[in-house]
Amino acid sequence: MTVLTRPILEINLNHLLANYRLLTQIAAPAVPAAVIKDDSYGLGAAEVVPLLYNQGSCRHFFVAHAIEGERIAALAPQAEIYVLQGIGQDSLEIFNSIPQLTPVISDPQMYDFWKANGKPAGKAVIHIETGLNRLGFREYELQQLNSENLQDFCMVMSHLACGDEKEHFMNRHQLENFEALKNLYFADIPGSLSASDGVFLGDKFRQNMVRLGAAMYGINTAPYRANQMQNVVTIKAPVLQIEPLSRGEFVGYSCTYRASSERKIAIVSIGYGDGIPRSLSNIGKVFFKIRGKLAECRIIGRVSMDNIICDVSDADGVEIGDFAYLADDFYTLDDMARDAGTISYEIMSRVGKNTRYLRQYIRD
Amino acid sequence: MTVLTRPILEINLNHLLANYRLLTQIAAPAVPAAVIKDDSYGLGAAEVVPLLYNQGSCRHFFVAHAIEGERIAALAPQAEIYVLQGIGQDSLEIFNSIPQLTPVISDPQMYDFWKANGKPAGKAVIHIETGLNRLGFREYELQQLNSENLQDFCMVMSHLACGDEKEHFMNRHQLENFEALKNLYFADIPGSLSASDGVFLGDKFRQNMVRLGAAMYGINTAPYRANQMQNVVTIKAPVLQIEPLSRGEFVGYSCTYRASSERKIAIVSIGYGDGIPRSLSNIGKVFFKIRGKLAECRIIGRVSMDNIICDVSDADGVEIGDFAYLADDFYTLDDMARDAGTISYEIMSRVGKNTRYLRQYIRD
Repeated sequence: MTVLTRPILEINLNHLLANYRLLTQIAAPAVPAAVIKDDSYGLGAAEVVPLLYNQGSCRHFFVAHAIEGERIAALAPQAEIYVLQGIGQDSLEIFNSIPQLTPVISDPQMYDFWKANGKPAGKAVIHIETGLNRLGFREYELQQLNSENLQDFCMVMSHLACGDEKEHFMNRHQLENFEALKNLYFADIPGSLSASDGVFLGDKFRQNMVRLGAAMYGINTAPYRANQMQNVVTIKAPVLQIEPLSRGEFVGYSCTYRASSERKIAIVSIGYGDGIPRSLSNIGKVFFKIRGKLAECRIIGRVSMDNIICDVSDADGVEIGDFAYLADDFYTLDDMARDAGTISYEIMSRVGKNTRYLRQYIRD
Repeated sequence: MTVLTRPILEINLNHLLANYRLLTQIAAPAVPAAVIKDDSYGLGAAEVVPLLYNQGSCRHFFVAHAIEGERIAALAPQAEIYVLQGIGQDSLEIFNSIPQLTPVISDPQMYDFWKANGKPAGKAVIHIETGLNRLGFREYELQQLNSENLQDFCMVMSHLACGDEKEHFMNRHQLENFEALKNLYFADIPGSLSASDGVFLGDKFRQNMVRLGAAMYGINTAPYRANQMQNVVTIKAPVLQIEPLSRGEFVGYSCTYRASSERKIAIVSIGYGDGIPRSLSNIGKVFFKIRGKLAECRIIGRVSMDNIICDVSDADGVEIGDFAYLADDFYTLDDMARDAGTISYEIMSRVGKNTRYLRQYIRD
C-alpha cells in the first residue's frame, strides 16, 4: 500500500549539459553563451549556472533583469553576464556593485541614462532592431550616434522573429539588416544575432556569439524536424484516489464533463497551482507506466488548482500511489504545449517556479 | 528623464484584510477559515498568514500540501492548519513533527495509512464526495466505516462544483447530499461545505465553517453580480522604448501582427516569464495613466518571455519610464482572465510566484 501526495519535478542536468555541448559544437566557432533568464526558464539558475560554468566552461550568460544577474554572479565569478532589459534607475545600484553585469542597451534614452550615471561596467552591448520590432535601436537612432559613442559598445546584438521556421522570409531579411548595420556601425566588434533557433539556420546566422536557451533546456527550436536535443523535464504526480463513475455523472468544476458510459477515474495530485495549464481541461493527457508499458489517459473535466481527474478506464492495473506522468521524453513539454495551445517555454517557466514540487535534479 | 526596467507587483493587504472581514461578517455565525494553499494563491503566505492571524484573528487555515503547512505553522502558532491533499508516505515526517497540521482524508486507503502510522494529529477531517467527483469518500466507502472509525474525525467537509453559478442545479444537489450524509454519519461534528463562492449562496451553504480563498484575494466568486470585494492585485511595468511603426511592418515572434497603417508602439518590460498569459497575444490590454486619465492600449504581436509590445498610437503623452498597468481596480485579474480565456485564479497563481517583480505589500 503506497500513499503519496506530492508532485515531483525532475530536471535532468546531464541532458541539459549534453544539449549545451551539442549546441556549442554545432555553433562552433561561434562563442556559446547561456541564456538563464527567468530563473533558467524556471529550471533553477542556482543549479544550472554552476553546471554550465564548471562543467561546460561557459563564460557568457544572458539574463533579462539585473536582479537575476545579481542572484547568480557569485556562481560564475569569471563570467560576463549580459542584462537584456538593460539598465535603469531601478537597477543602477546593482550594476554599480557588480562589475560582471554588462547592460544591453536598446534605446538612446537608456544610453544617455547609462552615460549620465558614469557608464557602469564601462562598456555595453548594443541591441539593434532588424525586424522583430521589439527592443533595439532603429537605424534612425544609430545615425545619431557619433564615433565616440560607438566606442562604448563591446558587442552588437539582435534577435530573430521567426528562427523556428527555417524558410521564413524574415530570417534572411533580418540577417541582411544585421550584417548591413554591423558593417556600417560596428565592423570592429563581435556580433550576436541568434538564440537557439538561429543556430540551426546555418553558419551565417551564428555570427560571433550564439545565445543558447530553449534548446539547451530540451525544447525543439527547429520543429521542422525531429528534436536533436535530449529531454530535460519530467513531471509526475501520484494518484490519490481511484473511483468508479456512473453513466450521467459530472466531473469537476462547472460540470464540463459528463460520463456517457461507466468509467473509472483517478484523482491525481497536481493542478494549475503547479503550473499545469488550465487549458488542458478535457483535452490533456497523462501516462501511466504499467508493467513496463505506457498507458495514455485523458484528463477529464476542468484542471483545478491542486488536482486533475483522469479517465483510467482503459488503464488496467493503475493503483493509488502510482505516478501519472504529465511530461517526459515520450510526451515532452513541446507535446503538452501543443495540446494546451501554447509553447513549451511558457509551461516550463510556470512549472519551474512552483515550490510544492519535490524537485529532483539528476546529475552524474 | 526616467528609465526603469523592472515590473512591479503590488499586493494590497488592507484590501485583503477588509475582504476577509466582510466575508466573515456575511458568513457569520459560521467559523471563518482562510485558504492559503498555493502560497496564498501566489500572493505570499508569509505575508498573508500573519496578517490574518494577528489582525483578523483567524485561527483556521487550509493548505493543499503538508509542505505548505510546514512553511507557515510558526506564523500562526495557535491555529489549526488543515491539509487538503491529506497525508502520505511523502508527508508523514512533516505531520509527525508539526502537531498543528490536521490531514484531510479523502479515501479509505489514505485513512488506513494514517491509522497504520499512529494517527498523526490524533484526529482528521474527512472529505466526502457530493457531486464534484474529485477527492472524497463516496457513500459506498462511508458504509464500510464502523462507529469507532467515525470517532476519528473532527470535521466533515465537501466542495461545490458550481458555487459561482447561483442557480445551478448542482448546488442544491450537493447541499442535499452533504446534509444527508452528515446526518447519517457525522451528526455530532462540524461540517464545512463552502469555499468563497458558496458563502453567497445562502446560510444553508455556510454550515459550521466556510473556507475563504478566492474572494478574500479579490476575485469575484459571485460573477452573477458586481464584485463586493476590493481589488488586491496591481501589476504594472515600465515602458522601455517607444518607436514609430511603418505600414506593412511586422511585430513580434512569428509575425502575427502587421501594421495596416502607421502606428506608434511601446515596448513594455513584462512578459509570460512574469506570469502574463501568452494567450493575451494580439488580444490583451494595458492602460496608461496620462494626466489623470486612463488610456487603453492593445497588446500587439506575441507576448514574449520578458516583453510585450503595445499600440500607443492613441495614447498621447506616453513616455519611456511610464508604467503600463496590466491589472488594477479598473481592469482586474478577472477582466484579464476573461480576455485570456481562463480564470483569474490561474493568473494570480502564476504572477505571484515570479521573483523578478519588485514586490510591494501595501498595508496600514
